[in-house]
Amino acid sequence: MPKKQAKSFDVIVIGAGPAGYSSAIRCAQLGLKTACIDNWHGEKGWNDHLGGTYLNAGCVATIALLESAKIYQTITHNLKEHGIQAEAVSVDIARMMQRKNTIIDSLSRQIADAFAHNKIDCIRAKAKLLNERQVEIVPADHSPAAIIEAQHIILATGSSPIGLSCAPIDNELIIDSTMALNLDAVPKRLAIIGAGIIGLELASIWNRLGAETILLEAQESFLSMADQQIAREAYRIYSNQGLELRLGTRVISTKKGSKKAGLERSRKVTVEYQDSEGTHALRVDKLIVASGRKPNTENLAAPEADLLLDENGYVHVDENCRSTLPGVYAIGDLTLLGPMIAHKGIEEGRFVAEQIAGRHSSVNYELLPSVVFTDPEIAWVGQTEQALRAMGEPIKIGTFPLRATARAQATGRTEGIVKIIAHADTDAILGVHIIGTQASEMIAEAVLAMEFSASSEDLARTVHVHPTLAKAMNSAALAFRNGLPAGV
Amino acid sequence: MPKKQAKSFDVIVIGAGPAGYSSAIRCAQLGLKTACIDNWHGEKGWNDHLGGTYLNAGCVATIALLESAKIYQTITHNLKEHGIQAEAVSVDIARMMQRKNTIIDSLSRQIADAFAHNKIDCIRAKAKLLNERQVEIVPADHSPAAIIEAQHIILATGSSPIGLSCAPIDNELIIDSTMALNLDAVPKRLAIIGAGIIGLELASIWNRLGAETILLEAQESFLSMADQQIAREAYRIYSNQGLELRLGTRVISTKKGSKKAGLERSRKVTVEYQDSEGTHALRVDKLIVASGRKPNTENLAAPEADLLLDENGYVHVDENCRSTLPGVYAIGDLTLLGPMIAHKGIEEGRFVAEQIAGRHSSVNYELLPSVVFTDPEIAWVGQTEQALRAMGEPIKIGTFPLRATARAQATGRTEGIVKIIAHADTDAILGVHIIGTQASEMIAEAVLAMEFSASSEDLARTVHVHPTLAKAMNSAALAFRNGLPAGV
Repeated sequence: MPKKQAKSFDVIVIGAGPAGYSSAIRCAQLGLKTACIDNWHGEKGWNDHLGGTYLNAGCVATIALLESAKIYQTITHNLKEHGIQAEAVSVDIARMMQRKNTIIDSLSRQIADAFAHNKIDCIRAKAKLLNERQVEIVPADHSPAAIIEAQHIILATGSSPIGLSCAPIDNELIIDSTMALNLDAVPKRLAIIGAGIIGLELASIWNRLGAETILLEAQESFLSMADQQIAREAYRIYSNQGLELRLGTRVISTKKGSKKAGLERSRKVTVEYQDSEGTHALRVDKLIVASGRKPNTENLAAPEADLLLDENGYVHVDENCRSTLPGVYAIGDLTLLGPMIAHKGIEEGRFVAEQIAGRHSSVNYELLPSVVFTDPEIAWVGQTEQALRAMGEPIKIGTFPLRATARAQATGRTEGIVKIIAHADTDAILGVHIIGTQASEMIAEAVLAMEFSASSEDLARTVHVHPTLAKAMNSAALAFRNGLPAGV
Repeated sequence: MPKKQAKSFDVIVIGAGPAGYSSAIRCAQLGLKTACIDNWHGEKGWNDHLGGTYLNAGCVATIALLESAKIYQTITHNLKEHGIQAEAVSVDIARMMQRKNTIIDSLSRQIADAFAHNKIDCIRAKAKLLNERQVEIVPADHSPAAIIEAQHIILATGSSPIGLSCAPIDNELIIDSTMALNLDAVPKRLAIIGAGIIGLELASIWNRLGAETILLEAQESFLSMADQQIAREAYRIYSNQGLELRLGTRVISTKKGSKKAGLERSRKVTVEYQDSEGTHALRVDKLIVASGRKPNTENLAAPEADLLLDENGYVHVDENCRSTLPGVYAIGDLTLLGPMIAHKGIEEGRFVAEQIAGRHSSVNYELLPSVVFTDPEIAWVGQTEQALRAMGEPIKIGTFPLRATARAQATGRTEGIVKIIAHADTDAILGVHIIGTQASEMIAEAVLAMEFSASSEDLARTVHVHPTLAKAMNSAALAFRNGLPAGV
């Protein structure tokens, strides 16, 4: 921990989430003397974790819990057809959380090891940008504040949940998305404000574990950023799974039941909301607020540093992630250059590190895949049908249902479709949209195809293993030409 | 069913496995009048199934049963860490088989529907090639034999298990790989002759369901066709799972216990085998013979047709799948042009159909992936390290362990590695080898990369979703350049 003033580095990275750790590691690999400052503060003893939201309270934590929830659901709902019997099935949420926390611990240590291996100075502290060269640190261990310096400073402090004044977080009855990954029991009835990616991911966990789950979404359209054919399919699948999706609803107020000693567990919260039919009241055991995220730029820079933010707090950057201060970069959730998703930050981290080291580098923002880690998953890359139609592009569309593949039937995971959109004249692939159990994995092939400016014919003519779900990608490409092929 | 003599077609396809059905459908799509003759004869009422071994007694049946076996294993071994309890777990193998058979039924119907949709004459009969234009059919429904004619004939009769004289199949104690997918109870102790792909796949099912499983393999090396680093990893993983792999063993004889009324279940078979240490006897409840497959060419052609076969019964073909008889093609397991694997036959089916229709077409035999459908799976495409070293190619190797990825840890499936071999000078990818839970799916990206003659840098610079297993492909490509990256 630096105690003397003005310890000096080539690069200081503020934040050790995906954007931060990837830039710090890449800087160090390229021979730059690098410090990375992190101040993750969470619940229950995971205060000192690297990895940021992504690892501790985002995708990784979500997938770890969803895995447990899927197993629970299989046992409670799907054993019979397999000829398997089990009795007295029960679930211990504290133990389930412990597994998730152990995984996070291990991955956080892995980042710490990579930092040590690459001789990165890992500083546990609050950080404030003083000017384009200096950062003030207030160490987590209460050692004295200090100032450190660098030629280049990379801002990567991520984002945090947006609060709602009508539903103030108390993390008992009204909880944020972080606490929603740390409950110690299954709520009997659960409402979630926001049916966006995070709300859906949380719903998919707790609904599987037995919570009656109601999502209140302000927008009239569902998953408006996704291809709308996929969104419709998702709506149908989620509804069949038991999620209650109430669109076009506006939450007006929340009212918490009074505290009674010994009855904390039975305390409820009442959500009052409006839709086109009028005003409704919903009484639930927990209310999750998942109404979006905001960049963590409050107190990030001293006013005199003069770092330009936009009206929503995003750091103003050019296409090379450079802020208005020379030598100061912003990456990941801090900017509006792409979606708030881990691999966007990771790519930018690498990109900025390579720029600083004087290497040729780039990020292909056109080909950043988006993912919803529910089950089935949703993943897409490139443009949606509605966006292309709005632009008047001549397009053709090939779709293939996963249920037509032998792999989906053999594994009992038949929901979903693969949709490929290609240019009507050139056959160039313009977008690939998948809903299905392995969509986040399957999209890898689509991203690579688009990196190579592939045509749908290229996917159609490339051998795909039988039986796989990946075969559906090939079949969707074949669907342009042959009518529906046998997917077996 | 044709009853009059010399009904005439543009194309007759003999066999409705993957090679046969894909060629028949593609011929029909291209406007050719097509008949497809099939005579699948299996056990227990699935006599009239299309789809051949692949569907009825191969990969699809294997994956369907493996899925059930994996669920059983999860419940019996892995629940605790998830905080889930279940008691009195039991398994009903007959019900498990019923699920598998229902899946096969559905997929077989799907092929039949595609035949009907494409107006393919589907003939249930034994077929014999009389000459380059005529096929004799002996219908399964005992209607009179007939002769049908076509301009082009495609042979696609597949392959069947090779028997061993020292272990004659009785399908009670000594069973073939087809019966091994149709047992009605879990053998307490099971031996398998052959630790090749089929032996391993069967072992991975029955071992998970509780059978003590011993594989007797004649070769000293394990999975000699696979990259040997992957094979070593596989050996380690399978052994940890409880498979007993005895290499360099030669089975000498088998001796069945005598039949006693009412004690059929406890009847055993003793396998005598030799290894470097001497002769051993192994007493088991079932013995599976999985010592390879042979092409189904016995009685396929009348002697006077003069179809040229090689000494092992494979149809002699040129690089366009043309046999020595003009207009007669052979595809799939009947030829030595590539591995005995469904997608090889499917590609050749399409290829031959397009040739017949006068279209430009090709099959890239260099890029036919190989797969082992165990769990974890093994999949590879391109060349192995040992083959490239033997050729003296200058190569470089990037590997990445799946356990270093966040996805593998979050889902608890951490076994395996991704290995990319590239040319040392040009960086062109020469082979990709994967062992891991989704290897058969992950290989899709590698095949596409190699179709585009990608360099490892292309994979390293393509965005991969976090957290996914596919990210390990990207990390293996990065491993060439940066040392081991953080996989989180």
